[in-house]
Amino acid sequence: MSPKSIRVCLSPALLPFYDLSDTIAVVIDIFRATSSMCYGLANGANAIIPVEELAECLSYRSNGHLLAAERDGKVVEGFDFGNSPFSYTKDKVEGKTIVLTTTNGTRAIQRCIGAEAVVIGSFLNISALTDWLKNQSRHILLVCAGWKNHFNLEDTVFSGALVHRLKTTDIELDDAAYAAESLYLEAQGNLSTYLSKASHSKRMQHLQIAQDVAFCLLEDQVSVIPILKGHELVPLTLPHLL
Amino acid sequence: MSPKSIRVCLSPALLPFYDLSDTIAVVIDIFRATSSMCYGLANGANAIIPVEELAECLSYRSNGHLLAAERDGKVVEGFDFGNSPFSYTKDKVEGKTIVLTTTNGTRAIQRCIGAEAVVIGSFLNISALTDWLKNQSRHILLVCAGWKNHFNLEDTVFSGALVHRLKTTDIELDDAAYAAESLYLEAQGNLSTYLSKASHSKRMQHLQIAQDVAFCLLEDQVSVIPILKGHELVPLTLPHLL
Repeated sequence: MSPKSIRVCLSPALLPFYDLSDTIAVVIDIFRATSSMCYGLANGANAIIPVEELAECLSYRSNGHLLAAERDGKVVEGFDFGNSPFSYTKDKVEGKTIVLTTTNGTRAIQRCIGAEAVVIGSFLNISALTDWLKNQSRHILLVCAGWKNHFNLEDTVFSGALVHRLKTTDIELDDAAYAAESLYLEAQGNLSTYLSKASHSKRMQHLQIAQDVAFCLLEDQVSVIPILKGHELVPLTLPHLL
Repeated sequence: MSPKSIRVCLSPALLPFYDLSDTIAVVIDIFRATSSMCYGLANGANAIIPVEELAECLSYRSNGHLLAAERDGKVVEGFDFGNSPFSYTKDKVEGKTIVLTTTNGTRAIQRCIGAEAVVIGSFLNISALTDWLKNQSRHILLVCAGWKNHFNLEDTVFSGALVHRLKTTDIELDDAAYAAESLYLEAQGNLSTYLSKASHSKRMQHLQIAQDVAFCLLEDQVSVIPILKGHELVPLTLPHLL
């Protein structure tokens, strides 16, 4: 049993051109939404509800949920926190449901509805995710959240890391998967240096969140795979074959 | 004098997210539309009129123009030829105006209207194009025609070749420009082998047009730079500083 194909969607704006049927969509927003989602669920959050708009996020206030909102890399005023992974520690999130809206990542998740399954990827859970995907028999679509519909290096390089670990001679790759793997192979020796030229890294330096960036590039900090059930991201219960 | 920035748009579907003001757009459809445009103008065609739809192309029949139409890699029935460069030789095109519609390339050109200038790139005219772009003071946007709104390797690798030749420490690059350059540097030693894994190359093999593919990867066969004037592509007259 192995995936039929691996494709990489380099921007959420390109999602309408992909057939999502019989497909596992892996949403990737390395700096920082999907990294924080993995970390939050690993630290005992009950669920994370990704929503597109600030107003929708605020409407959950009365439910006693934690409300998290990021726009342009910053926490939005009036919300409990943004998408820094260090806001998703055990003491803050255990036993809680988090409602989260971000510039790119949560929107990408919403646009994947229609896929057979929507799961969340980051370097933090890369091995757990790889092991699970290897045993699936569907198509895999790696969805880079990018930055405001633009291509970004970090999400693409992470896609390439997954392609590199998953590919076999039997699995069809699209051009973007080949490109992503090439970029990963160039970057892998020194990921943070390679990504330091990325626009988002520069944006992050400006925001003085170098610690976040470094943390989001660490492999295998958690073994959870967030999966969308209804409108909530919850930990996938293994083996969960699709 | 040098360009202010170099950005790479990986799919025509992403063009709405770019500001085209003060920008020179370079449209790239290596296999085969923009290669054939360069070759056709170099071989004495008066002009090439890129149109989006077959019906619009046919409407030029009474003007005595040559009508060229490609869809899914094949010549459309009822048209004089498609987008094989070998249809754009001197004996066929000298002194003629060609009206051309293709799956990807001509549509990408139409979507760039609004830029300060729209020019055409291919390996066939890469040095002439590089020399001209080096002396411009605008932003440069390299527009990959891709395949049906999807990313493709050959247009991106060509973009990377241009980035590599043009970049200086003063010119801002976006993430896609860095990625394209990385892919080019990996591919440059053996371009045709690297691109043989590309989906479009496979499609081309199937269509038995290996000769076209090989020709489109030859550098510096011509010195013409096609530029859009009104609705026609004509040879740019140097120096033409913008």
